[in-house]
Amino acid sequence: MHQLTIVKVGGKIIEEPESLKTFLKDFSLIAGNKILVHGGGRSATQLAEKLGIENQMIDGRRITDEETLKVITMVYAGWINKNIVAQMQALNLDAIGLTGADLNLILSDKRPVKEVDYGYVGDVKEINAPVLNELLEQNYVPVLAPVTHDGKGQLLNTNADTIAAETAKALVYDFNVRLIYCFEKKGVLRDENDENSVIKSIHKEEFEQYKADGTIQGGMIPKLENAFKAIASGVKEVIITQATNINNGKGTFIN
Amino acid sequence: MHQLTIVKVGGKIIEEPESLKTFLKDFSLIAGNKILVHGGGRSATQLAEKLGIENQMIDGRRITDEETLKVITMVYAGWINKNIVAQMQALNLDAIGLTGADLNLILSDKRPVKEVDYGYVGDVKEINAPVLNELLEQNYVPVLAPVTHDGKGQLLNTNADTIAAETAKALVYDFNVRLIYCFEKKGVLRDENDENSVIKSIHKEEFEQYKADGTIQGGMIPKLENAFKAIASGVKEVIITQATNINNGKGTFIN
Repeated sequence: MHQLTIVKVGGKIIEEPESLKTFLKDFSLIAGNKILVHGGGRSATQLAEKLGIENQMIDGRRITDEETLKVITMVYAGWINKNIVAQMQALNLDAIGLTGADLNLILSDKRPVKEVDYGYVGDVKEINAPVLNELLEQNYVPVLAPVTHDGKGQLLNTNADTIAAETAKALVYDFNVRLIYCFEKKGVLRDENDENSVIKSIHKEEFEQYKADGTIQGGMIPKLENAFKAIASGVKEVIITQATNINNGKGTFIN
Repeated sequence: MHQLTIVKVGGKIIEEPESLKTFLKDFSLIAGNKILVHGGGRSATQLAEKLGIENQMIDGRRITDEETLKVITMVYAGWINKNIVAQMQALNLDAIGLTGADLNLILSDKRPVKEVDYGYVGDVKEINAPVLNELLEQNYVPVLAPVTHDGKGQLLNTNADTIAAETAKALVYDFNVRLIYCFEKKGVLRDENDENSVIKSIHKEEFEQYKADGTIQGGMIPKLENAFKAIASGVKEVIITQATNINNGKGTFIN
């Protein structure tokens, strides 16, 4: 089977022209088929602020009202996505920028209202693997923005980490899939105050132990749980590393 | 050869949810392959105003500085494009929203600076007909936003009418191409104050006469000149009509 590398990137790296340029150059050097999934959180927040749209967060999660959805679609699917595509084309990657609505690539369910109404937020229901496959077979490089749809005409804001993981899982029947999460730190750290304490690899049993002894805590736990779910579904390797290190074997390897 | 209908739409129709919905329903009923090319001028101007970006016009043409290009890409390639795609999916059209950068579909030259520096404006250089063909063969419905690229990493603001005409001309070797320009009036009028004076069809000789006797003047002249160029290049028919009339044989037919 062919190799497929799915890279998820977000944050500062894609907001600053110089770091984005370096990152895309590194990305272009990855051998085999590739998919880029991007976020872009801060730029959407900044635009919302400029437009006087209130940024509503509950427990660290953004509430996506109609105006916020518009901002997100403009920033993620418009500016960030198309800018990345144009730059990839200059690097001879035949990029195609897509949301989940395009070619019905990612169908989501609007998150049901329980204690909190998250608004226009979608939880991934189905990845259109045959169509992604078809694009990859032509050596196109899909660039996925974190916006999906419900199939009934509604766009939905969707977590980019989840899109990357679900896309990886959906393509394991056709490719040897590697999933790289770009992270602001060098990897999963043994000591969060020591940038050089990167844990080189984590197996499932070690993860349980790290959780039990408190080495790994907070937001890293769900991130790693998702990584192990991807592995359990047939993804060969999940790598958590810095965007500057996607090509040099540094970071935390999960398999 | 298969039929291909390329529709260019812009203005109020796509800005108002109800009229957009009706238009897309009508569009979905067109038989054979189809491509939608959209503009969206006013919403970009409104967003620019809200952001305090000055709207610079010279002789009715917008100057596209860096900030304006960002706004245009956000509004056209982001919000308008993806919203149309999601709604088409709900109508069972397998839509794919694209700019000229995606799959290197439309390569442009940045307009050279002469008396006026139009900024990041691109004049269409080459349409990637083989890739558009490939998409149409799969029965996908390309939805083209009026943003192209220079192949060197730069996005460029490009006239939607021109994109529609150039795309039509590039596809005449593979399809019987019909080009429909949606217009705020019912068609080309014999008397601009009488909405019911639509000229049903215009041949080249008649056009020259209408120009000479002043029946057709102003902005309609370059529009029709482009239409006749498309016909000369092998496009079967150009129709100028209202968005509400794309399916009922009304409007001005040029062939």
